[in-house]
Amino acid sequence: MTSDPFMQAAIEEAQKGLAEGGIPIGSVLVIDNRIVGRGHNQRVQKGSCLLHAEMDCLENAGRLKAADYRRATLYSTLSPCDMCSGTVLLYGIKKVVIGENRTFKGPEDYVRSRGVELDLRDDAQCIQLMQDFIARQPVLWNEDIGE
Amino acid sequence: MTSDPFMQAAIEEAQKGLAEGGIPIGSVLVIDNRIVGRGHNQRVQKGSCLLHAEMDCLENAGRLKAADYRRATLYSTLSPCDMCSGTVLLYGIKKVVIGENRTFKGPEDYVRSRGVELDLRDDAQCIQLMQDFIARQPVLWNEDIGE
Repeated sequence: MTSDPFMQAAIEEAQKGLAEGGIPIGSVLVIDNRIVGRGHNQRVQKGSCLLHAEMDCLENAGRLKAADYRRATLYSTLSPCDMCSGTVLLYGIKKVVIGENRTFKGPEDYVRSRGVELDLRDDAQCIQLMQDFIARQPVLWNEDIGE
Repeated sequence: MTSDPFMQAAIEEAQKGLAEGGIPIGSVLVIDNRIVGRGHNQRVQKGSCLLHAEMDCLENAGRLKAADYRRATLYSTLSPCDMCSGTVLLYGIKKVVIGENRTFKGPEDYVRSRGVELDLRDDAQCIQLMQDFIARQPVLWNEDIGE
């Protein structure tokens, strides 16, 4: 189990999503050492093609000021895809903490090249959640990543 | 007035958003010469940081198959930002028709480098909508583009 309470909160979001019959990816947004938004993938629950965990988290955080995003850290249990990475770039979020990128890897090099700090945790619990899910629901997983 | 009925539909979405007190950007998704989704920026109307016009349009189109996205064309009255461009990349949308990029320009070169065809119209009506809006509501506009 991770000793980082923010990554732990993201994992709890992923587990919540799994318990709802959804895709087990979770995310939290942290500003000044405080969680200001939480979310998990809502493809199944809300029939949404937009609400990846990171997007649900940012939407739940509400309309923030540019200065707030710029000192924010986004935690995600999985490497952010092109959409979620683009959203990080739009709002100038300065750092992303990534649970794992073994089961899926977004455009990390591009995001880094645009000045965002990435902190990859290679977390065993995050990997396990996704490996189990992908083995059980490959069609749903492919839909979520546009494949 | 544009002679392209799909761009015209995107402009009508932008005008609908303006009439609601919102940011005048509109979008439609076209597959096999038919509009399958329409949307406009919902920052003001729904308090959303995610629902740019292109995102609202894609969400309204619902959960589509990968094969559908891959023959889709996304119309937007304004050059897609990092978030909306990332969403185009995630789903492998093959072509984006852009009303204008004078008042705002997203990462067009990057999107092209990833294999997406961009068709820039430099449409006078799209430019006018945004120029008038930005002059009237610069703070709201800056919020929408993370500035």
